Amino acid sequence: MRRKKNPKDSYTIMTHLVMPNDTNHLGDLMGGILMRWMDVAGAMAGMRHCNSPVVTAGVDHVSFDLSIPLGAMVVLEGWVTRAFTTSIEVFIEVFKEDLDGQRTKCNEAFFTFVSLDRETRKPIQTPLVEPGTKREHALYDGALRRRELRLIMAGRM
Amino acid sequence: MRRKKNPKDSYTIMTHLVMPNDTNHLGDLMGGILMRWMDVAGAMAGMRHCNSPVVTAGVDHVSFDLSIPLGAMVVLEGWVTRAFTTSIEVFIEVFKEDLDGQRTKCNEAFFTFVSLDRETRKPIQTPLVEPGTKREHALYDGALRRRELRLIMAGRM
Amino acid sequence: MRRKKNPKDSYTIMTHLVMPNDTNHLGDLMGGILMRWMDVAGAMAGMRHCNSPVVTAGVDHVSFDLSIPLGAMVVLEGWVTRAFTTSIEVFIEVFKEDLDGQRTKCNEAFFTFVSLDRETRKPIQTPLVEPGTKREHALYDGALRRRELRLIMAGRM
Amino acid sequence: MRRKKNPKDSYTIMTHLVMPNDTNHLGDLMGGILMRWMDVAGAMAGMRHCNSPVVTAGVDHVSFDLSIPLGAMVVLEGWVTRAFTTSIEVFIEVFKEDLDGQRTKCNEAFFTFVSLDRETRKPIQTPLVEPGTKREHALYDGALRRRELRLIMAGRM
Amino acid sequence: MRRKKNPKDSYTIMTHLVMPNDTNHLGDLMGGILMRWMDVAGAMAGMRHCNSPVVTAGVDHVSFDLSIPLGAMVVLEGWVTRAFTTSIEVFIEVFKEDLDGQRTKCNEAFFTFVSLDRETRKPIQTPLVEPGTKREHALYDGALRRRELRLIMAGRM
Amino acid sequence: MRRKKNPKDSYTIMTHLVMPNDTNHLGDLMGGILMRWMDVAGAMAGMRHCNSPVVTAGVDHVSFDLSIPLGAMVVLEGWVTRAFTTSIEVFIEVFKEDLDGQRTKCNEAFFTFVSLDRETRKPIQTPLVEPGTKREHALYDGALRRRELRLIMAGRM
Ligand SMILES: CC(C)(COP(=O)(O)OP(=O)(O)OC[C@H]1O[C@@H](n2cnc3c(N)ncnc32)[C@H](O)[C@@H]1OP(=O)(O)O)[C@@H](O)C(=O)NCCC(=O)NCCS
Ligand SMILES: CC(C)(COP(=O)(O)OP(=O)(O)OC[C@H]1O[C@@H](n2cnc3c(N)ncnc32)[C@H](O)[C@@H]1OP(=O)(O)O)[C@@H](O)C(=O)NCCC(=O)NCCS
Ligand SMILES: CC(C)(COP(=O)(O)OP(=O)(O)OC[C@H]1O[C@@H](n2cnc3c(N)ncnc32)[C@H](O)[C@@H]1OP(=O)(O)O)[C@@H](O)C(=O)NCCC(=O)NCCS
Ligand SMILES: CC(C)(COP(=O)(O)OP(=O)(O)OC[C@H]1O[C@@H](n2cnc3c(N)ncnc32)[C@H](O)[C@@H]1OP(=O)(O)O)[C@@H](O)C(=O)NCCC(=O)NCCS
Repeated sequence: MRRKKNPKDSYTIMTHLVMPNDTNHLGDLMGGILMRWMDVAGAMAGMRHCNSPVVTAGVDHVSFDLSIPLGAMVVLEGWVTRAFTTSIEVFIEVFKEDLDGQRTKCNEAFFTFVSLDRETRKPIQTPLVEPGTKREHALYDGALRRRELRLIMAGRM
Repeated sequence: MRRKKNPKDSYTIMTHLVMPNDTNHLGDLMGGILMRWMDVAGAMAGMRHCNSPVVTAGVDHVSFDLSIPLGAMVVLEGWVTRAFTTSIEVFIEVFKEDLDGQRTKCNEAFFTFVSLDRETRKPIQTPLVEPGTKREHALYDGALRRRELRLIMAGRM
Repeated sequence: MRRKKNPKDSYTIMTHLVMPNDTNHLGDLMGGILMRWMDVAGAMAGMRHCNSPVVTAGVDHVSFDLSIPLGAMVVLEGWVTRAFTTSIEVFIEVFKEDLDGQRTKCNEAFFTFVSLDRETRKPIQTPLVEPGTKREHALYDGALRRRELRLIMAGRM
Repeated sequence: MRRKKNPKDSYTIMTHLVMPNDTNHLGDLMGGILMRWMDVAGAMAGMRHCNSPVVTAGVDHVSFDLSIPLGAMVVLEGWVTRAFTTSIEVFIEVFKEDLDGQRTKCNEAFFTFVSLDRETRKPIQTPLVEPGTKREHALYDGALRRRELRLIMAGRM
Repeated sequence: MRRKKNPKDSYTIMTHLVMPNDTNHLGDLMGGILMRWMDVAGAMAGMRHCNSPVVTAGVDHVSFDLSIPLGAMVVLEGWVTRAFTTSIEVFIEVFKEDLDGQRTKCNEAFFTFVSLDRETRKPIQTPLVEPGTKREHALYDGALRRRELRLIMAGRM
Repeated sequence: MRRKKNPKDSYTIMTHLVMPNDTNHLGDLMGGILMRWMDVAGAMAGMRHCNSPVVTAGVDHVSFDLSIPLGAMVVLEGWVTRAFTTSIEVFIEVFKEDLDGQRTKCNEAFFTFVSLDRETRKPIQTPLVEPGTKREHALYDGALRRRELRLIMAGRM
C-alpha cells in the first residue's frame, strides 16, 4: 500500500535578503531571481515529501504584482498539496517583509516536480498526500483540475 | 499616432554554457536557473521593443520536458509578439545544443512585461507590434486569447 | 519606556540546498559559506527584532563538527536571545537534512548585531527581549555572561 | 580528407544585461567581466566548429575604448575565422546597446582555442574553415599573419 | 620523526576588491562575506602547511569593529601558528586599504583546520610548526591556551 | 614636479582557490575566469600606485599554456612597471600551486589602466615609476616598446 504523508511533512520555509545582484538597475528584485528561489524552495518541499531527488516538470502561471526592493526580506513558504503517480504539485507563497515588520503577500505559484529513483534516475511512485487543515483540503481538491489544465497546456492531454 | 515596430526589432538571442553552479546534484540544469535566463532574455527583448525599462508582470505555464546536462549550450530566442496598452507579450524559445551540433527544442514560454517611464517608473504606452511572417502572425493572433486567460488567472478579469 | 519583544517576533528560518559552488573540492559545504548563511540569517532575525538595519559586530566561537554534502538541505534557525543597549545577541542553530528526512544538528553560534538608525546610520537603542519558553529563558540568562566573555575577548573590557 | 565548415556554422550570439555585480564602484562594467564573457562566447563558437570540447590557448591584444554602464545590454558575436591544425582562431565583436536602441561597437578580440578529444583530452585535428563573405575572407587571410605574431609573443616561434 | 615547518611556509596573502554583491544595502561589506574570505585564506594557509586537503573545524570569536565600504581593497594575511595532532591553528588578520593608501587593521581570527588524507579523507598527522620571529613565538605560545578554551567552548573538554 | 613611486608601492598579491564554478566541464579553470582575476589584481595594483580609481584600457596578448585543476591554489602577483601620462602598465604573473607545494608559473600579462579623477571621472596624471631591482628595470625599459606596439594595435598610432 502506498505511504501517506502530511503537507506538514514537506512544509518548507526559505528566507532571503535581497542583495544588489538580485536587483535590476531600478533597484528591485528581478522576476527571474524570484522564480529561481521559488524553484529551489519547491524542490526542497518535494524532496521532503518524496525522500528522493526531484526535477522540475513545470510551473503554472505566475503573476508579479508587487515590486520588492533591495534590502527587503523575502519569505517563501511551500508544501506538497497533492501527489499523482510519479509527480507532485507544490504550492509556493511569496511574502515580502519590510523593516517595519509589515509582511505582504507578493505572489504564489504551483510547481510540478517528478520524483526520481536515486540510482536509475527514472520517475518513481511518490507517497500520497493526506490533507489536514481546511486550506490543505481546498488545495488538494483543486489540484486535479489544475493538473488537467497544465497537462493540456503542456500538450500531454 | 502610436508607433509600430516589427518583431525583428526586439528579436533577442542569448547563449549560455551550463556551468557547475547552474546544475543540481544530478548534474543537470536546474529549472529555476533556466527561468531566470528566460526572464532576462525576455526583458531584453522587451527593452528593445519599448525603448524603456521593463518589469516582469507575469509568466504563463512553463513545461520542462528535457533535462539539460552540464557543459551543454543553451540558446534562448525571444521577441515581442504583441503589445497591449502598457504591457507586451514576449515569446521565448529554449534550445539545447550538444557537441555534435544537435539542436533540440526544450521548451517555450510567454512572459508579460510592463513598460515603465524612465523617470517616474510608472507604466507607459508601448509601441504596437506589426507581425510580418506567418509565425509572427499566428503568435500575434493568439496573444489576445492568452492575455484573457492570464488576466483571469491573475484575478484581474 | 523601552519596547519589549518576544523571541518569536524575530524567529527566522532559512533553508538552503547545497549547490556545487558552495562546496570544496571534496564535495562538502565550505565552512565559510555556512558562516555567510549564518550571518544573513542572523541579520534577518536582528532586523525583525530591531525594525532597523543591523550590522554584524561579532560572532562567538563556531565549531564545525559534521560535514554537509552537496545536495543536502541546510536549515538555519535563529532568534534574538537578549538585547543590551544598541546591540543584540542572536542565536543561530544549523541542521542538515538528508533525503531520508534525517535531520541532524550541525552547529550553533551566537552573533552580535548592532541596530542602526535608518537615516544617520548611527547605533540606536533596540527593543528589549522578553523570553517565554524555558529554552528562551536559559539563553536569555546566559547572554550576560557570554557578553562579558566576548567583550573581554574583543579587548573591550 | 579534412572536413570543411563555414563561419556560419560556428556563428554565436551572446547577450548580457549588465548587473550590479558586473560593475566596479563607478557603476561601469569591469574589463575582466567582459573578457570572461568573450572567452565563453568564443568557446561556444569553437565547440560549434570543432564538435569537441575546446580550451583557451590565448587571446590577442584587447582594447577597452568605451565604458559600459549598469543596465546596458551587451551583445557579443563571434565565429571561427580560420583553423590551423589543432587550433582555431575565433573573432569576437562586442557591442553595447542602450535603451534608445543605439548600438555601438565597443571592442573586438581574437582568441585561440585548441580542440580536445572527448576521451583522451589531447589536442585533435579540427575541421577547416571555408570563408564565404568578403569580411570572412579578409579575416581568414589575416589569420596567418596574426598566428605568426602570437606564436612569437607566446615564445613558440 | 615528525616534519617541522616554518610559519613562512604557510604564509598566505589574499586581496579582494569589495564588489556590489559583497555589500549590504548600506553599501558596506557584509560580515558573512568577510568570514567566507577568511575561511578560504585560512584553508590555503592550512593546505600549504599540511600538503593535504583541510577542512574547517572551528573559528574563535571574531569582532567586526570597522565597516569596509564598496570599492575598498581588503587584504587578508594568514599563517599556521601551531600544529597539534591532526589539527592546526591558523591566524588571519584583515586590513582595509583606501584609495589614499591608508591601511587599517579591521580584525583578526583564529581558525582551526584539520588535515585530511587525500585518499581516505580521514584526519592525518600534520607537520609541526617551528616559530621564528617574536610574534610567531608569541602566537605559538598562546595557542595551547586558546586550544583549551575552544575545546571547552565546543564542549569537548 | 611629478611624484615618484616604487614598484613595491603597488605590489599586489591575490590568492584564489579554484572552486567548482570557476571550472569548465573538464574540471579545469576557465581562461575567462583567470582573465577576470588578472584584471582585478591589476586594478588593485593600479589603485595603489595612482591613489585613484582606475579603468582597464587594454590587455596585451595572454597565453594559457597550462591547465589549472579544481582545488588548486592560484597566486597572482602584479605591480606597476611604468607610468606614462594618465596611463600605467601593470605586469601580472600567474602561478599555480598544488598540494605538494609545487609552484608553477602559468602565464603573465601586461594590462594598461588609466587613472581617473575621483570626482570628474576624467583621466588624470599618475605618479611616475622609479624601478629598483634589475627585473623592475628590465620591465621599465621594455614598457615603451610595448606601449608603442599596443597603441598601434589599438589603432591609436
Ligand atoms: C506590473 C505592474 C507595473 C503593473 O502595475 P499596475 O499598477 O497593476 O498597473 P495596471 O493595472 O495599469 O497594469 C499595467 C499593465 O500590466 C498588466 N498586468 C498587470 N498584472 C499582470 C499579470 N499578472 N499578468 C499579465 N499582465 C498583467 C495589465 O494588464 C496592464 O496591461 P495593459 O496596460 O497592456 O492593459 C505592477 O504590478 C508591478 O510593479 N509588479 C511588479 C513587477 C516586478 O517587480 N516584477 C518582479 C517581481 S520579483
Ligand atoms: C519530468 C520528466 C522526468 C518526465 O518524464 P517522462 O518521460 O515524460 O515521464 P512520464 O510521461 O511518465 O511523466 C512523469 C510524470 O511527469 C508528469 N509531467 C510530465 N510533464 C509535465 C508537465 N509539463 N507538467 C506537469 N506534469 C508533467 C506526468 O504527468 C507524470 O506524472 P504522473 O506520473 O504523476 O502521472 C521529464 O520530462 C524530464 O526529465 N524533464 C526535465 C526535468 C528537468 O530537467 N527540469 C529542469 C529543466 S532546465
Ligand atoms: C581608457 C579611457 C579612459 C581613455 O580615454 P580617452 O578619452 O581615450 O583618453 P586619452 O586619449 O587621453 O587616453 C588616456 C590614456 O589611455 C591610453 N589608452 C587609451 N586606449 C588605450 C589602449 N587601448 N591601450 C593602451 N592604452 C590606451 C592613452 O594612451 C592615454 O595614455 P597616456 O595618457 O598615458 O598617454 C577610455 O578609453 C575609456 O573609458 N575606456 C573604457 C574603460 C573601461 O570601462 N574598461 C572596461 C570596459 S568593459
Ligand atoms: C593549449 C594546449 C592544449 C596546447 O597544448 P600543447 O601540448 O602545447 O600542444 P601543441 O604544442 O601541439 O599545440 C597545440 C596547438 O595550440 C597552439 N598554441 C599553443 N599555445 C598557444 C598560444 N599561446 N597561442 C596560440 N596558439 C597556441 C599551437 O600552435 C598548436 O596549434 P596547431 O595544432 O593548430 O598548430 C595547452 O597549452 C594547454 O592545455 N593550455 C591550457 C589551456 C587552459 O586550460 N586554458 C585556461 C587556463 S586558465
